Order: sequence, then C-alpha cells, then structure tokens
Amino acid sequence: MRAVDVILKKRSGQELGREELAFLVSGYVSGELPEYQVSAWLMAVCFRGMTARETADLTELMLRSGDVMNLAGIAGPFVDKHSTGGVGDKVSLVLAPMVAACGLRVPMMSGRALGHTGGTLDKLESIPGYRTDLDEAAFRAGLEAEGFAMTGQTARIVPADKKLYALRDVTGTVESVPLITASILSKKVAEGAEALVFDVKCGPGAFMKTREEARALADSLVRTGKAMGKRIVGVITDMTEPLGLKSGNFLEVEESLDCLEGRGPADLMELTYRLGAWMLVAGGVAEGVAEGEAACRAAIGSGAALRLFMANVRRQGGDAEKMLKLRGSYRSKHSFELRASRAGWLAGIEAYKIGVAGVYLGVGRDKTTDPVYPDVGFVFDKKVGDPVAAGERICAVYGKDGPSLAAARPLVEASLSYADSRPERRPIVLEEISAL
Amino acid sequence: MRAVDVILKKRSGQELGREELAFLVSGYVSGELPEYQVSAWLMAVCFRGMTARETADLTELMLRSGDVMNLAGIAGPFVDKHSTGGVGDKVSLVLAPMVAACGLRVPMMSGRALGHTGGTLDKLESIPGYRTDLDEAAFRAGLEAEGFAMTGQTARIVPADKKLYALRDVTGTVESVPLITASILSKKVAEGAEALVFDVKCGPGAFMKTREEARALADSLVRTGKAMGKRIVGVITDMTEPLGLKSGNFLEVEESLDCLEGRGPADLMELTYRLGAWMLVAGGVAEGVAEGEAACRAAIGSGAALRLFMANVRRQGGDAEKMLKLRGSYRSKHSFELRASRAGWLAGIEAYKIGVAGVYLGVGRDKTTDPVYPDVGFVFDKKVGDPVAAGERICAVYGKDGPSLAAARPLVEASLSYADSRPERRPIVLEEISAL
Repeated sequence: MRAVDVILKKRSGQELGREELAFLVSGYVSGELPEYQVSAWLMAVCFRGMTARETADLTELMLRSGDVMNLAGIAGPFVDKHSTGGVGDKVSLVLAPMVAACGLRVPMMSGRALGHTGGTLDKLESIPGYRTDLDEAAFRAGLEAEGFAMTGQTARIVPADKKLYALRDVTGTVESVPLITASILSKKVAEGAEALVFDVKCGPGAFMKTREEARALADSLVRTGKAMGKRIVGVITDMTEPLGLKSGNFLEVEESLDCLEGRGPADLMELTYRLGAWMLVAGGVAEGVAEGEAACRAAIGSGAALRLFMANVRRQGGDAEKMLKLRGSYRSKHSFELRASRAGWLAGIEAYKIGVAGVYLGVGRDKTTDPVYPDVGFVFDKKVGDPVAAGERICAVYGKDGPSLAAARPLVEASLSYADSRPERRPIVLEEISAL
Repeated sequence: MRAVDVILKKRSGQELGREELAFLVSGYVSGELPEYQVSAWLMAVCFRGMTARETADLTELMLRSGDVMNLAGIAGPFVDKHSTGGVGDKVSLVLAPMVAACGLRVPMMSGRALGHTGGTLDKLESIPGYRTDLDEAAFRAGLEAEGFAMTGQTARIVPADKKLYALRDVTGTVESVPLITASILSKKVAEGAEALVFDVKCGPGAFMKTREEARALADSLVRTGKAMGKRIVGVITDMTEPLGLKSGNFLEVEESLDCLEGRGPADLMELTYRLGAWMLVAGGVAEGVAEGEAACRAAIGSGAALRLFMANVRRQGGDAEKMLKLRGSYRSKHSFELRASRAGWLAGIEAYKIGVAGVYLGVGRDKTTDPVYPDVGFVFDKKVGDPVAAGERICAVYGKDGPSLAAARPLVEASLSYADSRPERRPIVLEEISAL
C-alpha cells in the first residue's frame, strides 16, 4: 500500500477501507509514515469528510493505538460526560459525585485549560494537595469507593490522538467533524465508559459557533458511538455567557461546592441536573430524564453528592479542611472591580472575551507549557438578564499580576453589553440527541 | 505570520496575499517551514484553487527562488515550447532547429522521462556523445550560432519547484491547475523565454484526461503568463495514440531525422508545423499561423532545419556520423513482433499502455534514478485508421532484456483494438488559446 494512493483516494471523495485507515494510523504512530503525508490526508478529510463507517473505524484504530483502561472486577455501569469546552464550565466537579451517588461509576479522565476554555484538571489542582496523576490502582480504588475518580490521561491512552492532534493544530485541520469525533470518542472509550453524555457547547464562546455545527458534531458523536456499541446522548447547550457566576480555577471549585450544597446558580444547576439525568438514563439506572432528574436532585438534596466529593478530595490527596478554609478568600491581591456603565439590563457577557481575558489573568493558557494560577478569575454579581443600576458592581476580576489585569480589562469591558428592556432569557439546553 | 493561519485562510477559500505566498515559498525552500504545513497548504489549494493573481505571484516567487538565465547580449526573440508530456512526442527535436531556421532563438531546457511519458533529454542522450549538461557559456554559444541549444535544468533553476514537486508527488497534490501552472511557467520563464507555446496534451495517454481539464490548464498558463508580461499560446492536442510511428529514445531521434528531411509521419508533421507556426507568431516574426506554417515548411523543405540540427549535435558533443550510421539498425537484440489478430481497421493504440510498457522495456523510468536505454522501444507499421490484414505486422517491440519483453507484451497486446469499418480520423490539434 502506498500512502499517496490512499491520500488520492480520499482527495477524490472515496471512502477509505479499514486497512487503509489502519495503514495511516499505525504508520503515523510508529513514525514510518512521514508527517507531510498525514497532514495532506487530514486536509483532504477536512474537505471530503468521512462516512459513518470510516469515522467508527478511525475511532477504533486510534483507541487501539494505546492502552484501554481495565475496569474488570468493578461493578458498572460506567458512564462519563464530556464537554467540548466552555467558559466557567465546572459541571464535571458536581456531576461526577452526583451521579455516583445515584449508582453510576464515573471513570473520569479530563483535560487541561487551552485557549479560552478551562480545564477540569487545572480546577481540581487548585485544591491544595489534590493529585490528578492517579495510577491504575488509585483510579480503581476511587471508582470502587466513591464511584468516581478524576485523573488526567496517561501517555499510553490513545497516543495516536496525541500525535494527530498536535499535527492538526499546526496544519489547520482541527475543524473537522469526523476528526473531532474520533479524537473525543477514542479517548472516552479508552477510559472504559460504556455510556457517554456529550455536552456539545454551542455559541460564540464555544468551538462550535452555530447550531448547525454543534448538531453535526453531536450527530456524529452519537452515530459513531452507537456504531461502536456504546450508549450515547448528545446535549447541545448554550455557551454565550460564562456558565454560573464564577470563572477561574479555585473560584470554580468554590462554585462547585455551592452546587453540591444545592445553592448553585440557576443555569449551572439546570445544566448539571439535565446532564446527570441523561447519564442515569444512558447508564440504565433511570427510565427517563424526569426520573433521572429527580434522582439527581435527591443526591444533592440529601448531601450524598457533597459527601462523595469530599471523600474524593481526601482520597486524591487534597486538603479538604484547607479547601473549606480558603473558600471565599482565596483571591489574588491583584484585582479590580467592574461597575455598570449605565442603568438598564445586563444584555450580554461574551464568554469568548471572558475566556481570552482569563488567559491573560492566569486562569488558562495559550501554550500547553504555560502555568496557570489557582486564585485568579472572575466573580460575577450579575447574570445576563439581571437589572443593573449605574455604578453597580458587575464583577470582580483577579489576575496573577498588575500587567495581566491591564491586558484583561479592555476585553472584560468589551464583553459587557446593556439593554433598555429585559432581554429574553436564553435556554441553557438547546437540543438533545440520543441513540438509546 | 503563522503558517497555520495562512493554511486556514486558504482552507476557508480566501485569496492569499503575495507576502503570505512568499512566506510559504521562501520558508519551505530555506527549510524553516516544516513539510507537513506545506503539504496541508498544497492540499487546501487542490480543493480551493488559486486566483489568477495568486497563481502569477506564486509563479514569480518560485522563479525568484533561483537563478534566471542571463541571455543579455544575444539577439532574440526568445521563444520556447513546452509539452505536458506524451508518448512518442519527439516534437522538440524537430521544432527547435525548424523555428531557429526561421529566426527565433530557442533556449530549450528539457526534462527526463518519468512514468509513462518520455523525456527530451533521454532521447538526445541516445545520440552517442551528446551532452545535455551545458554550462552557461556553451548554452549561449549554441543559441548564438544555431539559434537553439538543448540542455537540462541546473539545480539552481527554480529550486522551489524541485522541492515542491517532490512533496506534491508523495502527498497526492500533483493534480492542481494553479500548482501545475506555477511549476511549468516558473521554469520556462527562468530559462529566458519571452514567448511560449504550450502543447497541452489531452486524452487517456496524457496527464490531462479530458478536454475540460486540458482547457483549464491551457487557460491558466495563458492567463498567468500574460500577467507576467509574456506572450503565450496554449495548444490542446490529442494524446490518444502515440505520436508518429516510433517511440523510444534513439528510435525517436531517427523519426526526428525523418521529419527534418520532410518525410515524417503525417500526425507528427502536422503538429510540429502548427506549434512552430504559433512560436513564430508569438515571437513576432510571422503575422499569423498561415504565414508561420509556410515559413516552417520552407525551413524543412530547404534543409535549413536539418543543417541546424546536425550542427547542434556536433556542438553538443554528439557523434553525427555515428548517429547516421546507427540509423535504422540501433535496435536491442531482445525483441518481438506483434501481428494483427484479425482483419479490419486498426481502431486504437492506447498511448498510456504503450507508455507504461515502455517503462518495462527501458524507454522510460519509474523512479528518477532508474537507467534508460537508447536502443529500445516501438516501431509501428500502422497508425490508427489503417486497414490491416490478419497476421500483418502492427509493430516491432525492443526491450532491454527478455523479462522486460515478457512484462511489456500483454500491455502492448491490450493496447490494440480493431474495428470492422474505418474509424473516424481524430484531429491532432484540438483547440488553440492565445493571448497575443
């Protein structure tokens, strides 16, 4: 088989066979196939797409390029959630203990902040002592005891994706529904999940800007996952304003604690309950989403979810007492407040601008090697749709240093817009696609 | 400037600026830009194309990546012809001395056989002693004395094309009208031509299979050349059966001598006169193609073209006497004859199959490092449209060794087809596009 023939086949719009995809993936991982041929193929895929069969084959080949988590001996059902990335999205921290309290096992492998979107690992690590580099034994122990564990991906999980993603990132081939599908799904299946709920963020603060793009990705994830024998739900959710009131690292841990105590912001609670309900349905422990939501509310209301979260913090090395002591006061001394420039209603907080400002502040990072800071970010007093008086505080902004604040300020200011009348409330859950 | 942004710009269908193209070309030639980014851009170009302005800019940037032939001090007009590659295409060997006899200067830099198409340099080098590695002084001397010289491209002529072509070849990005245009035109302009006639071959034996593809390339060459201030004609010609009766290396030198003596096969003479006429028009020494054709016929009829060819052979180190002595007898001892399997009319000699069979025989090569042989190839007794009797000889086939004949035979047999009635004669010149 010659790589150039396979590239030409895809270039001309034909479907590649499994052997041809295997030739590309294994050749690339082993280093036998040069990057310039792989990138030409990737670009051809961006234009020609992939059939459902090709996408499923690619996902499985990528999955098999590395280790698959061995969860044998632990009782399931193993269900996870994956978000395509947003601003202020701390749902995982609440969701995992909540659905674990309802009887699911959540083998959660998360990522780090990159670009304007945050990362669950960075948030967790803002808890003093918390470790996200669990070995298999520790991961299994957490799953068995609390029903969930939170860790980073090891180098041996889907190495093909690590190499391919790095190449896509520098060759303009990131945006491609089948390539994104294979990248996401291969990692989630490798961690051992049998059922998956995908939170496909949609809007100017998300990777998928339009409803059509979000639906195409959700459809592809559901269809491909089903072809691989998994139970999949895709939930398209709004990412126009940041989720909740706090955006940062430890700031989001704080807000997660609020949620676990049943007093989180409405949008965040609504989304968490809805995603949790679908996880329970996908995992087969609830008949429908209404039953699932009721179970989730009970897990929060009873304190069961909070107890599991605290147990997980201790298990993963976190200093739970210090975490609780820092709550409400773990703030960088470099800060400013932003006040309403006029009276009226808050009409917009642009999530994308807040995310980019967050990179300046030290919440997120531009390059994977940049450090992030625990005590920086945003505390909003207002959500979109709230009435504001002129001069009333909209948010407090915390940065790693003075220059970071100066860089972030114009972006944060530009992110806000006002209206003379109350803007219509935007629903958080836009669409749900399931193949159960 | 980041390469990924330039790739994304082209991926989204936007026109790249001259600085962006310069960044890609010079970055690639200098080795600063990795091949995987260049190949991703090339593939995006295959899908998105290039505007006329982009194509002209790319051509000029490639041209400037190396040396440009200095013809200062020699009287012009400098006119050349380029063919996109066919089987049995020895036109250059006749054309150059013919139009030189009419007052043009032909600074001809040619290529070698690759794949199923032949190469002028390989044909010339089958003349004992003939050298195609002229230095600038020898090239200029030939141009001044005979009005033409035939050489290979030095490494310093358009190095960007050498690197880009090698990458395109292995990444499935050869077929792209703007990329082909820039590759061909940059080299032809670098050799010093002021006016150019392009013989765009069309048909199953050519790179451009359909009339639409051939027209797109001819249009692009004419338009881009004009944008660069050159006088350009594109002639689309048929490449269904091999041109003339002989196909090989020395075999094509023999047929060129036939042509120079005014007794070449009809298709070959017609094409040579037509291309020559356009060269004279493009070079400004004939008013129209009718006048140009008359001048070309006169240059053959008077023996002037033949005398210039013989002088060129001697100047470039060829043993003219030995060439004439070998004429008609320089044949490999490994041969077979193919006879008509039935009576009727010869309906087809598939040029592509003959070209591929020629690679087995040693006429051409698969890889640039393969050797070629002077005394191998095909001598046809019949052309398409000729009546044949059952068992009558169609052609003699000469190969470098026995196995090469065995490999070639089924292809040669499969290349032939017969009909019960006289097939319609296919015109050799299909279309002419000029911007004079």
